[in-house]
Amino acid sequence: MNRTTISYTDGHIYEFSPNLDPIYTASNGESLTFETIDSLNKEIQSNEDLLHSIPDEVNAATGPVAVEDAEPGDVLKVDIEAIRVNEDQGRVVTAPEFGLLQDHEEIEHPFTRVTPVDESAESIQFNDIDIPIKPVIGTIGVATESEVIPTLTPHDHGGNLDTTDMTEGTTVYFPVFQEGGLLAMGDSKAAMADGEMCGTGSEIGTDIDVTVEVIDDPAISLSRPLLHTSNAWKTVASAESMEDAVASANEDLLELIAAEHDMSITEAYTFSSLVGGLEISQVVDPLVTVRNACPAEYLSSPF
Amino acid sequence: MNRTTISYTDGHIYEFSPNLDPIYTASNGESLTFETIDSLNKEIQSNEDLLHSIPDEVNAATGPVAVEDAEPGDVLKVDIEAIRVNEDQGRVVTAPEFGLLQDHEEIEHPFTRVTPVDESAESIQFNDIDIPIKPVIGTIGVATESEVIPTLTPHDHGGNLDTTDMTEGTTVYFPVFQEGGLLAMGDSKAAMADGEMCGTGSEIGTDIDVTVEVIDDPAISLSRPLLHTSNAWKTVASAESMEDAVASANEDLLELIAAEHDMSITEAYTFSSLVGGLEISQVVDPLVTVRNACPAEYLSSPF
Repeated sequence: MNRTTISYTDGHIYEFSPNLDPIYTASNGESLTFETIDSLNKEIQSNEDLLHSIPDEVNAATGPVAVEDAEPGDVLKVDIEAIRVNEDQGRVVTAPEFGLLQDHEEIEHPFTRVTPVDESAESIQFNDIDIPIKPVIGTIGVATESEVIPTLTPHDHGGNLDTTDMTEGTTVYFPVFQEGGLLAMGDSKAAMADGEMCGTGSEIGTDIDVTVEVIDDPAISLSRPLLHTSNAWKTVASAESMEDAVASANEDLLELIAAEHDMSITEAYTFSSLVGGLEISQVVDPLVTVRNACPAEYLSSPF
Repeated sequence: MNRTTISYTDGHIYEFSPNLDPIYTASNGESLTFETIDSLNKEIQSNEDLLHSIPDEVNAATGPVAVEDAEPGDVLKVDIEAIRVNEDQGRVVTAPEFGLLQDHEEIEHPFTRVTPVDESAESIQFNDIDIPIKPVIGTIGVATESEVIPTLTPHDHGGNLDTTDMTEGTTVYFPVFQEGGLLAMGDSKAAMADGEMCGTGSEIGTDIDVTVEVIDDPAISLSRPLLHTSNAWKTVASAESMEDAVASANEDLLELIAAEHDMSITEAYTFSSLVGGLEISQVVDPLVTVRNACPAEYLSSPF
């Protein structure tokens, strides 16, 4: 397939906002490759390179790309077809005043551990331990409705969701807030745990193959990103507290379950307590992010 | 195998405390069956039976069973070999002032939905939807160090952990706080989502086959329950907030990773951000419960 490649050298953003200038306009249904730089802009290359504070410019998101026909109220469907690491090492770091255990006496802040990629590009090494590469797009989103939101922060437009399901084989649905949608992505990881406790995964540059498609006049309106993985539908919500985030993710899922099965919201709520369940994306960004999964046998596409 | 059956009719508790009278003393290594009653003591049998408030006596835990040789500082290993539902229906309910979305305007509190068990005992029905039975022990624990803790509440002794991994094929390790350990369990579900959002799973009576074994003078001391599932080791922590719970679960895991791989705590922290990750058990009990999973290829038994 003849794909256009959009590189971070063509353009990248550090803020999602309502007013973004596209660096490319894709046709509805076009397949593209996004080339991304690691979240720390190549500044950490050895265990001696330390992150003394979170830079103002972090999580460069390649783009934005406008998609023809996308209008506010539509849904932008992004099929993540493949993610290839494009450098020979990742890096996992701590930084002062960042991360789940930032006040732990025995944990060094800052600290860096470089994770070399093996020759087959199938695993990274942490010390002498092999970890399979399961690439994750950390930051992916669209132009916001009204706010200016740094690429360090997740919200209803997507952004720094740091969600392990944002990987090959997943389809992501975003609400379209602005004409063209204006998709951007970056901040990939070669591997990441649910939670991203120390504040990063193995941060690495990637080439990401996607196909973008506009869902015009969707059967349901979307307030936040929605994921369709290989075996489940997952709502995604970000909030200041985990308690608020899980409530929002559950509420969003109830609407889908109720519509699919012609249930009341009460029935959907009790049904949601029996299958799939709540999952943690990340607990370290300015807002935390969680998911509520429902196995695909109980939901079909709401669009 | 000739197993003794301990039934809830032999004895059950509604509080875990330091001073529990055993109803049976098992030998070290003995295999037993615990017969449990549903968490609501058979009071909810139709969709018209409503739970107007959480009863004082809820989550009856069959036992306690003392285990010979168990002394404070030891670890009690409980292999969960099989869980069979022992009645022909479960029930999922909401109750006022209980559950994740207890203030949601569209959700009825109280509400009951009975979930019949099919003839093969392989699934339950919610309306006309089949849900595979994946039984979960909701409440399981040992005598506490000093506090009196109702069976509605989880804590370091176990208790109402409401954890989907508490199922067939999992081995649970508990700290022993009192002579004999004093194991009790109940509050099973035929199926439950991670999060248990509405406040219950499909509550049901079960027969639970376990083998109990004392680990004398363990190589690591245990402050909280630890799980070994079919493919991972998981720390389990309960706290008032999800934020505090995930911090404790991660801290416990770092000790295991550091010991196994001769890493510093800082190295273990960054490694823990690359594999497995944080998981949600329940967000509805007086304390919430979470887990931190590490795939079994990176950890062996710490004992």
